[in-house]
Amino acid sequence: MEDLSFIPDLPSGPLDVYRNGASFNWKRLKLALEGDIDLLKLKYKIWRTLEKDPLFAHHPVTPPLEEQKRITQLQLKKINEYKFIPKEMFNASYSKRTRTIMTINEAVQSLNPSVSVKMAIGIYLFSNALLSLGTERHLKFYEATIKHREILASFALTEIAHGSDARLMRTTATYDPSTKEFVVHTPDFEAAKCWVGNLGRTCTHTLLFAQLITPDGTNHGLHGFVVPIRNPDTLETYPGLTVGDMGEKIGVNGIDNGFIMFNNYRIPRENLLNRTADVTEDGTYESSFSEPSRILGAALENLSAGRIGIMQESCQSLASAVSIAVRYAATRTQFGERGRETPLIEYPLHQWRLFGHVAAAVIYRLYIGKFTYVYLNMVEKSNAGHRVDNLSEAVSEIHAMVSSSKPLLTWGALRAAQQAREACGGHGYLKSSNLGDIRSNHEPTVTYEGDNNVLSQQAGNWLLRQYEAARAGADVDAPLASVAFLRDLPRLRAAAFRAARTADLKTPDFIISTYRWLLCWLLKHTHEKNEAELAKGLTKVQARNNCQVYRWKNLTKVYAEYLSLIFSLEAIETKEKELQPVLMKLFCLYGLWCLDDSLVELYQGGYSKGEEMARLIRDAVLELCSEVKGDIVSVVDSLAPPDFVLNSALGKSDGKLYQNLQKAFFSQPGVFERTPWWRDVVPSSKL
Amino acid sequence: MEDLSFIPDLPSGPLDVYRNGASFNWKRLKLALEGDIDLLKLKYKIWRTLEKDPLFAHHPVTPPLEEQKRITQLQLKKINEYKFIPKEMFNASYSKRTRTIMTINEAVQSLNPSVSVKMAIGIYLFSNALLSLGTERHLKFYEATIKHREILASFALTEIAHGSDARLMRTTATYDPSTKEFVVHTPDFEAAKCWVGNLGRTCTHTLLFAQLITPDGTNHGLHGFVVPIRNPDTLETYPGLTVGDMGEKIGVNGIDNGFIMFNNYRIPRENLLNRTADVTEDGTYESSFSEPSRILGAALENLSAGRIGIMQESCQSLASAVSIAVRYAATRTQFGERGRETPLIEYPLHQWRLFGHVAAAVIYRLYIGKFTYVYLNMVEKSNAGHRVDNLSEAVSEIHAMVSSSKPLLTWGALRAAQQAREACGGHGYLKSSNLGDIRSNHEPTVTYEGDNNVLSQQAGNWLLRQYEAARAGADVDAPLASVAFLRDLPRLRAAAFRAARTADLKTPDFIISTYRWLLCWLLKHTHEKNEAELAKGLTKVQARNNCQVYRWKNLTKVYAEYLSLIFSLEAIETKEKELQPVLMKLFCLYGLWCLDDSLVELYQGGYSKGEEMARLIRDAVLELCSEVKGDIVSVVDSLAPPDFVLNSALGKSDGKLYQNLQKAFFSQPGVFERTPWWRDVVPSSKL
Repeated sequence: MEDLSFIPDLPSGPLDVYRNGASFNWKRLKLALEGDIDLLKLKYKIWRTLEKDPLFAHHPVTPPLEEQKRITQLQLKKINEYKFIPKEMFNASYSKRTRTIMTINEAVQSLNPSVSVKMAIGIYLFSNALLSLGTERHLKFYEATIKHREILASFALTEIAHGSDARLMRTTATYDPSTKEFVVHTPDFEAAKCWVGNLGRTCTHTLLFAQLITPDGTNHGLHGFVVPIRNPDTLETYPGLTVGDMGEKIGVNGIDNGFIMFNNYRIPRENLLNRTADVTEDGTYESSFSEPSRILGAALENLSAGRIGIMQESCQSLASAVSIAVRYAATRTQFGERGRETPLIEYPLHQWRLFGHVAAAVIYRLYIGKFTYVYLNMVEKSNAGHRVDNLSEAVSEIHAMVSSSKPLLTWGALRAAQQAREACGGHGYLKSSNLGDIRSNHEPTVTYEGDNNVLSQQAGNWLLRQYEAARAGADVDAPLASVAFLRDLPRLRAAAFRAARTADLKTPDFIISTYRWLLCWLLKHTHEKNEAELAKGLTKVQARNNCQVYRWKNLTKVYAEYLSLIFSLEAIETKEKELQPVLMKLFCLYGLWCLDDSLVELYQGGYSKGEEMARLIRDAVLELCSEVKGDIVSVVDSLAPPDFVLNSALGKSDGKLYQNLQKAFFSQPGVFERTPWWRDVVPSSKL
Repeated sequence: MEDLSFIPDLPSGPLDVYRNGASFNWKRLKLALEGDIDLLKLKYKIWRTLEKDPLFAHHPVTPPLEEQKRITQLQLKKINEYKFIPKEMFNASYSKRTRTIMTINEAVQSLNPSVSVKMAIGIYLFSNALLSLGTERHLKFYEATIKHREILASFALTEIAHGSDARLMRTTATYDPSTKEFVVHTPDFEAAKCWVGNLGRTCTHTLLFAQLITPDGTNHGLHGFVVPIRNPDTLETYPGLTVGDMGEKIGVNGIDNGFIMFNNYRIPRENLLNRTADVTEDGTYESSFSEPSRILGAALENLSAGRIGIMQESCQSLASAVSIAVRYAATRTQFGERGRETPLIEYPLHQWRLFGHVAAAVIYRLYIGKFTYVYLNMVEKSNAGHRVDNLSEAVSEIHAMVSSSKPLLTWGALRAAQQAREACGGHGYLKSSNLGDIRSNHEPTVTYEGDNNVLSQQAGNWLLRQYEAARAGADVDAPLASVAFLRDLPRLRAAAFRAARTADLKTPDFIISTYRWLLCWLLKHTHEKNEAELAKGLTKVQARNNCQVYRWKNLTKVYAEYLSLIFSLEAIETKEKELQPVLMKLFCLYGLWCLDDSLVELYQGGYSKGEEMARLIRDAVLELCSEVKGDIVSVVDSLAPPDFVLNSALGKSDGKLYQNLQKAFFSQPGVFERTPWWRDVVPSSKL
């Protein structure tokens, strides 16, 4: 077995009573969830390093807005200096290198999400986009970004009046053959680029998406351009640009989200990212359709990389939130009998409120770990120009998987963070619980990188196409087999709920087969409604809009839950034996807890008509909550980052809840002093 | 008809297209929702006054923590100076006076919730508590608080290690006959009083709840004491006290929530609030059981007043949140066909996401308006010593109604605020949308003044008792008739879903009768489970704990929804004719939207076995969304406070979305200047 002594032991304390009864070793589970000992070591190395650095110390009071941005920028600079990426990684395979970068991102995100966003956008997404959208002539930007860190970049796509619908962007880049430049222009404030992370205060360049117009007046659609924004030595913006910061937000205030208007701003012709199309010196537009597999791979990466990163981060936020709430629940007592107070964790209601989210934290982590691997391999193969069977179908399937899973995970983590805060009562409302910041910083993920509702629709489109093919007896275009069960459509339709005891439900078989039935029914239900709307004479778009509520929305959610189940189940089966029982219990708890949310559809579709189905599924959920209780503190020990990173007075690993709270209160600067503004409000008689 | 010209007309703009099609006059609906023209005039007077006062100007960037507290204290002082309470109110009836104070609270809360909390705790709840718990000897405190405003008070009940379970509080007040004083003492940090609003920085006195111990060593349980905390002229805390502020919170940071430890701190014997019990000079404990109706009235008031205030505030927050989101949805376009972009409000999914919450905002407002009236009359009668039939039963029933409704309304407003923010996409994440602050400031209501989960259990206890009585054929002890339907238990049990078209569902009859069936089934389901657990040999407490999930929890939620329906329906029937159609549509939408959430129980209980029930209920919800669309902008005009109060760049009444956003961005101090800390982070080559 691997030596896990690099993971520090947990301090003894009030949590021991629960830890001592665990069925497994929490360090082994931690490794199993990480999936790779080198990556886990890297995380601990980063955390140890940053804990020692005063620049990364936590602030008991949120610093002023501008100071948050300054600290974040300095932290990024410092992380660059630490060079956490091992040198050999620069020559490693794409998938290995990317997985390492993703791990660094996770480690940094759990400490300060603003820094990880700044780093991801400003360095990694930008440099990857240069490789995938650009050509040799853009290597100088790549080197300046990733090697010399002279460039801090941003992405300018969204406009004030247009978010999700990229076709309607109004910023133009018109080619001027007389100077061999593109003239970038913003017609009005509604077309100002906005929500551009790093743009408000710091970036030196932006990757701009604008309508490319040739001298003959033809609009060739959105293209990417590298546009200089600020003098790197003075941080002054260049003339011709109106750049500002969008101001305070609900969270991630270390990120300087900016807006920008271009006033006939000129950039060299070579700044067009010209992998798929170029404009010649004299102004002729030329498409290059070479290397279709590379183009598909690039498309896949550009669409998915950010969203996969967000899902990884959601796993981290979810893990931190439930860890705090479970440790609090195990140390906080309330009411009781015979003079003994009962820890919250012993109450069935409290278990039910939290344990489903803990199970989700484990299942999502296993799912995304495995899915990331599949995805990176696919990009690597296509980037390398290897022939990949059904590549285009695989890209569509991955896009559907990501488009349904990003909503599931981001909303799941948001709900968990809220439940965790409520489960910690008033104390959870303190900044020192860290639950507020975890929640607020996570929150934008549900509407950025594709609004969750819009993304779900894209997954729904793909699912319906597969269903229509399966119905017609044709092959399903899903090389990753996520809807392979559609081949069994007739048999699945005939299935029904057959269980007499909760034990019959607490199995992967029951859960997976019920999910397959449910997916088939939701597909049928959605398809029929869609056909009925079309038959009324509605357009395709109108018909689809009328099928969103209760249909596409539920369908794509259930599909994403199904993906998380089949991927995590495969992962669990490869884990060491000691961990199997607890992982299987968490799997079943998560699966049934999710099914509980689809009981209406199970009844409506006729999977069962009796009262037993709801009763058994719900009883099974409660039984599983009770069964995992003895392990749950050790499960969150496996999920939680070290105390310094978790940064919560309620969730420290020593379990000394009130001592930690006391320390948090007493260590505030000036806590026992009279308020400095007392003269402004006395005498009280005038109050 | 009343002259409503004191309500300013709304500016013409892009929202006109929706406003012009409304079926009613929005000012009439606004008056109907307020219920009293004088109170509505008072609100507008307060808002007009504060809008002109620079002390109440909004800040584009959240001020530093201490500055928020300072501003809040100054604002309270200023509001006191404005003397918004008409002089004649001091001699008006209890219910009239209290309704006026509540209206002032609502008006202030929608502008700055910290000020209204500070005022409610520091002045009104304290002075009311003096009247209900104290005697003549405490009138000096009353006068100093309400008339001269020399006292700013706080309430010290919760301790660090004990929140909900008041019996286990450990702070003691031991009587010392030698000096005729109580000696107040905190044994350790875990017994420090905490979450005491106004205590951290400002209050002069606290109403302390401590275990009263007589010289013979007997503990007589929790009693209330008036305890001086700070010198009103210097704001210095008195020796013997360790007082501090709890630090930053998720929201309401204008409130200085504090903690306090008493070190054998002495207060005069007379500071005991001695309406129900006293300690004689020589140290004898004496109960006084006179005036039972006044005692019950006092108990009712002390338990409920704060919670009713929270429900009123929840209505305000909910109204503001949905107003912003609906105005945004009517002015923001996205995608579309034939070159024309579609306003978000035209999408069925977007309607479904928002309109149920809009309907809830109207229904809750009508419900709480009517309920407040019932409650105030009850307290008034009992305070006046009038004989009230079944007073004790009525007090229990009101307590059950409040205990189930406070969770419904506070969670409902929280969900709405979150949905509103998501429905505004990224722009909703800006501080300038105000949705973040509305949400964060509202959030503590779900765990304070009785944690929602704990409160629900109390309502559940009462409901089960009524069910058991009804089952045994006995009378139901519910003078307010909230469970009068239990008399029809046998008939209700036999009811079933009978509807063939959505039109059959869109009626109060269908909704109310379905709710009654549902309540009966949930009562039966919960009762049976409880009996089964008891039969296993569990204690009462254990049995109840095992019945919380899916049973008590759902039961009390459904009961509260039912209350909101029957009270609001009664209110709607008294409103003017022009308003009836839109109010009835909103009633049906709200009712069916809530029933959708109980479909599992409707199936499980066998109300119907077919697929039609879910389909028809859900189709009816979608039809109603489409039917209210033409009115919805005017509905939110009736719900929304003036622009200054709403304070949202996305939700201004002129509908000039992008001009308002541009103004918000461009008016930030230094928005176009280079960041002041640029030297710290250049040259970028070192980034």
